[in-house]
Amino acid sequence: MNINQSVAAFFAEKVSELKFEDFLSEEVHWAKVGILDTVGVTLAGSSEPCAQILSSVLEGSQGASIVFGQPITCSALDAAFINGTASHALDFDDCNNTMGGHPSVPILPALFALADELEVSGKEFMTAYIAGFEVETKLAMMVNFHHYTKGWHPTATLGVFGAAAACARLLKLNSQQTQVALALAASGASGIKANFGSMTKPMHVGRCAREGLLAAKLALAGFTANITDVFEHPQGFFEVYNGRGNYDISRGLNAWADPFDIVKPGIAIKQYPCCGSTHPAIDCAIELFQTYSLRADEIESVDLWIHERRLQHTNRPEPRGELDAKFSVQYVVARALLEGCVALAHFEGDAYSDEAVRTFMKKIKAQPYDASQFSSDNHFGGQVKIKLRNGEVLETKVQQPLGRTSENPLPKERLKKKFELCGKNVISEKSLDNLYALIDSLESISDMRQLTSLLKSHS
Amino acid sequence: MNINQSVAAFFAEKVSELKFEDFLSEEVHWAKVGILDTVGVTLAGSSEPCAQILSSVLEGSQGASIVFGQPITCSALDAAFINGTASHALDFDDCNNTMGGHPSVPILPALFALADELEVSGKEFMTAYIAGFEVETKLAMMVNFHHYTKGWHPTATLGVFGAAAACARLLKLNSQQTQVALALAASGASGIKANFGSMTKPMHVGRCAREGLLAAKLALAGFTANITDVFEHPQGFFEVYNGRGNYDISRGLNAWADPFDIVKPGIAIKQYPCCGSTHPAIDCAIELFQTYSLRADEIESVDLWIHERRLQHTNRPEPRGELDAKFSVQYVVARALLEGCVALAHFEGDAYSDEAVRTFMKKIKAQPYDASQFSSDNHFGGQVKIKLRNGEVLETKVQQPLGRTSENPLPKERLKKKFELCGKNVISEKSLDNLYALIDSLESISDMRQLTSLLKSHS
Repeated sequence: MNINQSVAAFFAEKVSELKFEDFLSEEVHWAKVGILDTVGVTLAGSSEPCAQILSSVLEGSQGASIVFGQPITCSALDAAFINGTASHALDFDDCNNTMGGHPSVPILPALFALADELEVSGKEFMTAYIAGFEVETKLAMMVNFHHYTKGWHPTATLGVFGAAAACARLLKLNSQQTQVALALAASGASGIKANFGSMTKPMHVGRCAREGLLAAKLALAGFTANITDVFEHPQGFFEVYNGRGNYDISRGLNAWADPFDIVKPGIAIKQYPCCGSTHPAIDCAIELFQTYSLRADEIESVDLWIHERRLQHTNRPEPRGELDAKFSVQYVVARALLEGCVALAHFEGDAYSDEAVRTFMKKIKAQPYDASQFSSDNHFGGQVKIKLRNGEVLETKVQQPLGRTSENPLPKERLKKKFELCGKNVISEKSLDNLYALIDSLESISDMRQLTSLLKSHS
Repeated sequence: MNINQSVAAFFAEKVSELKFEDFLSEEVHWAKVGILDTVGVTLAGSSEPCAQILSSVLEGSQGASIVFGQPITCSALDAAFINGTASHALDFDDCNNTMGGHPSVPILPALFALADELEVSGKEFMTAYIAGFEVETKLAMMVNFHHYTKGWHPTATLGVFGAAAACARLLKLNSQQTQVALALAASGASGIKANFGSMTKPMHVGRCAREGLLAAKLALAGFTANITDVFEHPQGFFEVYNGRGNYDISRGLNAWADPFDIVKPGIAIKQYPCCGSTHPAIDCAIELFQTYSLRADEIESVDLWIHERRLQHTNRPEPRGELDAKFSVQYVVARALLEGCVALAHFEGDAYSDEAVRTFMKKIKAQPYDASQFSSDNHFGGQVKIKLRNGEVLETKVQQPLGRTSENPLPKERLKKKFELCGKNVISEKSLDNLYALIDSLESISDMRQLTSLLKSHS
């Protein structure tokens, strides 16, 4: 890199120069994984109240962009907003360890909305996605984890730059225009953790997708912004959002594309629509259920261990609502042991108070693990021990939940299963099959509208 | 106040209870001044590139809300965005000392856009405006001037709460819904000073007007947000935007409506479309021009003094562009001495490089004043001394620019003159006359659309 180059100039140059032909097969592989999973969770989230209310408030919007799971189209900006909100509505979308947040949902809803206005190929689409992913994560390297801890919602406050960069790439902006888009994004970054636990959290994501797309569109149309030092300025992004001494520019610049963040640490796919801290224990429970074909009445007691920090917010033996149930390690492990899965239906209506599940939950004891069970720097471990009525003891442990990093990927059939479960009540089975096949061979699509046209519901 | 009440609950209760009947005549008077001036500068700004480009990017938007000075209507959200950007495009809109920014432009574009969707009276409109003005300025008391100095653009980051509160009032939200709107606004506050000097600055204003309106609409539609402690939360507005120790909640709460900030310190009206720091010197120059009917060739030299802090960014003897000219005290004082006014036309095209003006500017010497001229705590003073070729010396000084506070108000005829100059090339003279009369008797209007229908251009 040119050491006199500003952060915005650096990112803009890299983004505008990125070509699909330069990607390795694993980069393309992970892009497809991220796209498939995001499409699935967005379909699943499209009927959630946050997306529905937002959609009603934006009613009357006109345009060619598809609203996932609804029989309407609207402007690209509004589609990015609604679909972005839907994509994060269930908190079931992918995660990234660098970002301390969700890397795909700020970007893909903006790209899908924009693709509906243009004729763009699958290759161009993936290039834009990887570019945006790399910008937001390398920026995260500069500002995290202070940025995260302080109270910003990084998915939104960093994701807006990912969305802006990705849309700039899809619109084929030159380097200077891309800088304008990034500078505009710096004035549109918002979202605080105080609003977590409400509909406003997923709305942060929709808003940042919209802001990123808007930034790129304005840059293309000739808008102006600070292209000298919008990040480094004394009243710029780093100083205002993080503060003096709380960021490290070179850390992010030096790591550009070496490797691409989408490959390593990569995308963590959530298998279960509940708090990620419960996932190691669920993995253990499902393994035991499948291996031993367990029946509830055989089980006398269950001990489970997860990391102390994760137990703090998931030790909820008597959840009082759907959201509470998503954070109850006792509830989700009970479901896993009784049914062999943890599914969206388990968090709908009053499922959380099901009597049989409640009775079974009394047998479960959740505890923090110690150094004899897992190495002290591992906070992704989980262990489950079952005592049967016949005296037999069944036990298993995992070092990290399946799918957490690219080194421990979710098997292809599980990813497909999640996708199908997410989409099945929203669009037709045939559309789902077609979508899966199209995403699996995304590099051969010449116009992304072949794909997006399947996302619209017809009812 | 109830000391256990959160800031959001306090503001929400006050805003939802405010009634036009409770206002004093001076509160109503100043509301009319703010509305008249904002309508004028928005019309003048409507043809600026920032508003035009934004408008083109939002093309296709459908709705009943008028875009100032254009022959179109669009959705209320988009109208708030475009008109809000236009209103601040020339930096010619009103100021407020508490806020360290511009109090009316975040609010009024949102209210005008919303009023086009509803049937609201002039009284309801003014009540909403005063409510929003009071929320943003009392919030400013809690966070300024740290908030300002740090690099936030308070017009946007505080104005978003003013817009949300005002729209909540116009939509007749109850106290709890108003809290939701304020909590949503806390996740939508953005805008950093690093983008000053570009089109992104006025765009901050349009965006915050839009965000505030959106927050109120979502709250009405049943959206959820943190209504417990969105400001006070460890990851809430105060801690994240200002940081521990950099805000004082009680300072703002105790000052609520005592008096209303719109009355004291009140609205500062800008007479001249250039940096406020140059205004005291312009006032002096115009006074001398008018008193002595000055001719350029009589003048041998000009000395002017303004406060050191203000001279720092306005000491520009050779401005290189329109924006630069707006910050050149030499340029604007030259215009005032040569023509008796400083007008929008002086910043259009290459007016800044006019040869006669350039020649005259060489005679002007700008200096910081000392304690023998003004008291040390006064940074609003200005003094001009002219030496004529015949040896005569003419001199005058002002303690603050005319219109800076409500104690030194702009005379009604000057306010009217500014309004006419702002609107004259945008809408017809007849519409301007009607607008002036309608705003002057705003309490008697039963449907604000009588007024807004005049703001549309017909060409």
